[in-house]
Amino acid sequence: PFLHWIASVFFLCCHLCFFDSGTPGKILVWPVDFSHWIGLKVILNQLQLHGHEITILIPSPSYLFDHTKIPFNVEILQLPVTKETIMEELDTFLHMVSFELPKLSWWDRQAKLREMSHSFLRMGKRVCNGAITNKELLSRLQAAKFDICVADPLSFCGELLAELLNIPLIYSFRFSYGNVIERLYSTTFVQTGELYYSKILGKRNLKTTTLCEIMGKAKMWLIRTYWDFEFPHPYLPNFEFVGGLHCKPAKPLPKELEEFVQSSGKDGVVVFTLGSLIKNLTEEKANIIASALAQIPQKVLWKYTGKKPDTLGPNTQLYEWIPQNDLLGHPKTKAFITHCGTNGIYEAIYHGIPMVGIPIFGDQPGNIARIKAKGAAVEVDLHTMTSSNLLNALKEVINNPSYKENAMKLSRIHHDQPIKPLDRAVFWIEYVMRHQGAKHLRPASHDLTWFQYHSLDVIGFLLACVATTIFLVTKCLFCCWKFGKTGKKNKRE
Amino acid sequence: PFLHWIASVFFLCCHLCFFDSGTPGKILVWPVDFSHWIGLKVILNQLQLHGHEITILIPSPSYLFDHTKIPFNVEILQLPVTKETIMEELDTFLHMVSFELPKLSWWDRQAKLREMSHSFLRMGKRVCNGAITNKELLSRLQAAKFDICVADPLSFCGELLAELLNIPLIYSFRFSYGNVIERLYSTTFVQTGELYYSKILGKRNLKTTTLCEIMGKAKMWLIRTYWDFEFPHPYLPNFEFVGGLHCKPAKPLPKELEEFVQSSGKDGVVVFTLGSLIKNLTEEKANIIASALAQIPQKVLWKYTGKKPDTLGPNTQLYEWIPQNDLLGHPKTKAFITHCGTNGIYEAIYHGIPMVGIPIFGDQPGNIARIKAKGAAVEVDLHTMTSSNLLNALKEVINNPSYKENAMKLSRIHHDQPIKPLDRAVFWIEYVMRHQGAKHLRPASHDLTWFQYHSLDVIGFLLACVATTIFLVTKCLFCCWKFGKTGKKNKRE
Repeated sequence: PFLHWIASVFFLCCHLCFFDSGTPGKILVWPVDFSHWIGLKVILNQLQLHGHEITILIPSPSYLFDHTKIPFNVEILQLPVTKETIMEELDTFLHMVSFELPKLSWWDRQAKLREMSHSFLRMGKRVCNGAITNKELLSRLQAAKFDICVADPLSFCGELLAELLNIPLIYSFRFSYGNVIERLYSTTFVQTGELYYSKILGKRNLKTTTLCEIMGKAKMWLIRTYWDFEFPHPYLPNFEFVGGLHCKPAKPLPKELEEFVQSSGKDGVVVFTLGSLIKNLTEEKANIIASALAQIPQKVLWKYTGKKPDTLGPNTQLYEWIPQNDLLGHPKTKAFITHCGTNGIYEAIYHGIPMVGIPIFGDQPGNIARIKAKGAAVEVDLHTMTSSNLLNALKEVINNPSYKENAMKLSRIHHDQPIKPLDRAVFWIEYVMRHQGAKHLRPASHDLTWFQYHSLDVIGFLLACVATTIFLVTKCLFCCWKFGKTGKKNKRE
Repeated sequence: PFLHWIASVFFLCCHLCFFDSGTPGKILVWPVDFSHWIGLKVILNQLQLHGHEITILIPSPSYLFDHTKIPFNVEILQLPVTKETIMEELDTFLHMVSFELPKLSWWDRQAKLREMSHSFLRMGKRVCNGAITNKELLSRLQAAKFDICVADPLSFCGELLAELLNIPLIYSFRFSYGNVIERLYSTTFVQTGELYYSKILGKRNLKTTTLCEIMGKAKMWLIRTYWDFEFPHPYLPNFEFVGGLHCKPAKPLPKELEEFVQSSGKDGVVVFTLGSLIKNLTEEKANIIASALAQIPQKVLWKYTGKKPDTLGPNTQLYEWIPQNDLLGHPKTKAFITHCGTNGIYEAIYHGIPMVGIPIFGDQPGNIARIKAKGAAVEVDLHTMTSSNLLNALKEVINNPSYKENAMKLSRIHHDQPIKPLDRAVFWIEYVMRHQGAKHLRPASHDLTWFQYHSLDVIGFLLACVATTIFLVTKCLFCCWKFGKTGKKNKRE
């Protein structure tokens, strides 16, 4: 009824005033470059709109962070390397992880992973040192009296800074707690990281600090997934699932792009990108892909900066950059060929577009496994694929209506939330500030030792009780039996 | 900034239109009487405002359900007993659980609990039979094509009806899944319940139905707690914590009450009730309580229908009924003496009032333990208390400011939610309707057997592999050793 509607609007408006009424705070940010920065930036922009003062720590040579364009306070961490060195290290790392690693045997891969883990750690430590060893910067941060630290745990140090500055910590990440420590980082990584942390914090606490202990202090985890994408699993009250917070309705395309898209007629278009990190494929691989694309009736927009493949069909256009979200939201878009990064997958979910996944590294194989299981994608292996593999995958997701239906179902789930993911992320960050760390959401299990956590102390005590009882009973029975025998003997005598 | 505010209001209004745009559905309700009905009624009223058609199944003789006043479609379950018999059974049950049980020895108490569990089950079965054996009613319900069944699991049968009508089930309860089955119900109860269910469902499925299996089919659990009250613990995506959804701002008091409250001056008032189920105390107990109350400077409003205690002080007024929520929200109220029912505790949390808890049965001892741990209450034992116990408890919560501070802290946590609990409860009920059961929120663990759930199949397989390896290696070594020996022997020969 209309009256009820009016009342609800009124209520929500009042509620909203309350929403915005928090005192503006000071937020320290420990970001990670590349795709990780895309989502975090959206949250920070929103927090800034709410009046909060944001200070971001970024290394002097970086990739996506353009120091001059970031609209927040920027503290630059001076690193003893040039941008060229960093890009070279990164390229080596990416080439190894994307193309070399899959060719190695299981044993060699483990050894290589161990080596890469070390080099990853070295890069991380270099950045962390840029903050921790700069006494002048540290005392400036201390004096600024931040209310909170928002950190991306992929590059460690955020938790260390929060600890040193004694402020509540919030993580923003794709994975949740257990996964971060157990899956992403190898044991070597954790051990080396712990040595580093203990060296710095040991001076204050006089005991070894475990990574688990210090990461467990986080007051809130903003996880970049949701139940449209993730399988249902248990979680804790200080977890919020804010996957797809960077997604937004499509804007109109630039004239030239729109004309190309419209020229596809009834067949529509396919959008294809392997993300910002994988720039070039081998010439052979590019030709395999291009010849598959040439055989579909759809027009294809391919974000690709390498040499133009010889087999490129007239239906395919190469672009250095594409407005991915606007293209995925275009009514003519039939499918999305993706490297399965979480950001891209969420844009496809948001707009209900079925996918052909070509996962490369990191969370990408796991991401596409989820979307496949939900029936909205087909997977193709980058290393073994033939033209017909890719062609069949494309035909399947475009022509079999179940993929579109399932993609639309995921989209409906994504859009049917009482509060949008971005608003939730901002709410819970402000919440932790309002409630001085929101200790009431953090489970006490973090403060238990491993044997308490697994109830081994209780089980041990109970087992000891049982053992004692058995011992006493046996002893008694033995005594009775002996006494009986002696008695009989005495009687006989 | 103002512009941002306007934009946000606009966005939320749009969002709201979306909220209300769900198609009205048909909801079948399996309620439980007494305090359980208070919260459920609030949800159902709200659902009705949203245009949904609600049908509620209630037994012919009941306590709080006034058939003529319920504003929903009512289906009356004819039971073969009179209201008098039911009230007598209930009184015996309550007297036993409140006053007799605590006096028994541990062993006697277990035996008595077993007996009571059976009688509770008998009452439940009687109501359930009223629905299940009435073929005419069942086929009417089948024909009505309900979209969903909302059930209170304290009285079993809701899950059975949902199963028979093949519609999604939503539970509304104080406890979560595990607790329901393991703690509230004894093993005997579960076994008898399962026999009953298997008898009815076995005809369709030809196999035994476990209570765990059928309750595990619930699509959503609306749990009547929240992190203001509950300690943080893991939960699943199909759980919503909507504690305190019945709470609302205080209305002005009736003139006579307001005058009495105002007459308390600076000292303020104490509100005292033991809930709707405990009507009368022994004369001795009432005198102990009254003499304690007589010694405090506050005025006391006591909901009590028994004989007026001799020791009643001039500061204490007895009432047959009090507007509890309005009194707790009154600025003059200093403390709340409560039997620790979840509804009352939530009203005190909502208004930030410290408590003296006198828990009696059910969830009440657990409830007060939580509020005590959070520093907003003192507990007094009904069975062993003296006047000075109660007096000291009252002085402590009124004069030690930490209790008021902690109560206000809980209140701030309660009010600082992005969506009010009632709106969330309604949203998720409508959500399950919109998404035809919302299977994407229900973890797959429900479909595992107990040995799969505990990974015993995997562990067993791995152990078998290890055992086989050890066996083969030992065998090989033994053969080698034997062969070596024979070789040596042959050589020697």
